Amino acid sequence: MDRLEGFTGVYRDFVHERDWEQFHTPKNLAMALAGEVGELVAEFQWLTPEQAGQVMADPAHGQRVKDEIGDVMIYLTGLADVLGIDLVEAAEQKLAKAALRYTVETHKGSVSKA
Amino acid sequence: MDRLEGFTGVYRDFVHERDWEQFHTPKNLAMALAGEVGELVAEFQWLTPEQAGQVMADPAHGQRVKDEIGDVMIYLTGLADVLGIDLVEAAEQKLAKAALRYTVETHKGSVSKA
Amino acid sequence: MDRLEGFTGVYRDFVHERDWEQFHTPKNLAMALAGEVGELVAEFQWLTPEQAGQVMADPAHGQRVKDEIGDVMIYLTGLADVLGIDLVEAAEQKLAKAALRYTVETHKGSVSKA
Amino acid sequence: MDRLEGFTGVYRDFVHERDWEQFHTPKNLAMALAGEVGELVAEFQWLTPEQAGQVMADPAHGQRVKDEIGDVMIYLTGLADVLGIDLVEAAEQKLAKAALRYTVETHKGSVSKA
Repeated sequence: MDRLEGFTGVYRDFVHERDWEQFHTPKNLAMALAGEVGELVAEFQWLTPEQAGQVMADPAHGQRVKDEIGDVMIYLTGLADVLGIDLVEAAEQKLAKAALRYTVETHKGSVSKA
Repeated sequence: MDRLEGFTGVYRDFVHERDWEQFHTPKNLAMALAGEVGELVAEFQWLTPEQAGQVMADPAHGQRVKDEIGDVMIYLTGLADVLGIDLVEAAEQKLAKAALRYTVETHKGSVSKA
Repeated sequence: MDRLEGFTGVYRDFVHERDWEQFHTPKNLAMALAGEVGELVAEFQWLTPEQAGQVMADPAHGQRVKDEIGDVMIYLTGLADVLGIDLVEAAEQKLAKAALRYTVETHKGSVSKA
Repeated sequence: MDRLEGFTGVYRDFVHERDWEQFHTPKNLAMALAGEVGELVAEFQWLTPEQAGQVMADPAHGQRVKDEIGDVMIYLTGLADVLGIDLVEAAEQKLAKAALRYTVETHKGSVSKA
């Protein structure tokens, strides 16, 4: 089985065993996601671009970043699951739209809005 | 190949073809992730919990939510990729920590901080 | 003097005494603001709307909410200050635009996008 | 009257005239705040630190930043108001706590966690 599908099932069991479905509504999970992304952003806030690029070379800081990315992924998986959305499919379809809007011809080396 | 690994490769190519690696630093991608999560949260902000639970039943609103989840997943994949972090592994490891902190015995039906 | 102007001056001194202007760039302050808003949102994430409406009645939780609102206001003040933006004027001008877009006639009792 | 108190009253009237108190619960306003902060962060996401420092010199981009800061301030004012929190007092009290934790002696030129 696909690793992400496998994780989704493990997380669903984790929530079910704790009787947490009552808390895991779309609104609440969107808020939890925003909270975790805030913690992730905070790991980079005072770093220069150069320091941020080397963050994984510091074991303690790198582990914090990995943990925060893990938290974001957990809630994103949970939110997509309660909404019946396939995460990879959603990303693939949105990237296909972006590829039409930001073509190689018009946007090579530029991220200005299309 | 794993679908998420497949998508990660597709996204890496998308960025490379546009010469966007220069913009895709950890700081910038963390900011982009925060921006997209803000858009996702905004889709739910005025809904009652009941309305939010039915959001996918409205085709137009459901598509917007799927698109925003796709955008969040794109930047989360990109951020993890430039940091050399495996998204599913990060989520699995963090969930294992959470399982120790929020045990079924102490937290069944309760999300109060451990 | 206006209380917000007074606070802005106090905060500017706080930053200057610590030689923190080097960290307080617009990008970094925007990230710090996102981080603090994430912490504020997290205070409400698992509450029902009814519980959230009563949060200030719980002294400990109410104090945490007040602290997080304080943090958000600190960084918002700092970001506006380094950009030379007057916070109250920015809010007044944006509200005036919103009043034209969301008129009483078209939006009484409705927050649907104009 | 204090300008921020004046604006708070104007905003309260704006909400009341539209019968929007029903939407302006603490949870919803916290989400709206997160959404607007996401839009503000997005204005800076692809800029270098140097470009971000010059953003107000570009009239169009500067106006967008001012508008987004206005939106953040609007919802922060609204959230504080429904919770009965004085924004400036909350900021002052939190800054006083920060001054004890991050003293000039220990943190001059350094933002490492206390």
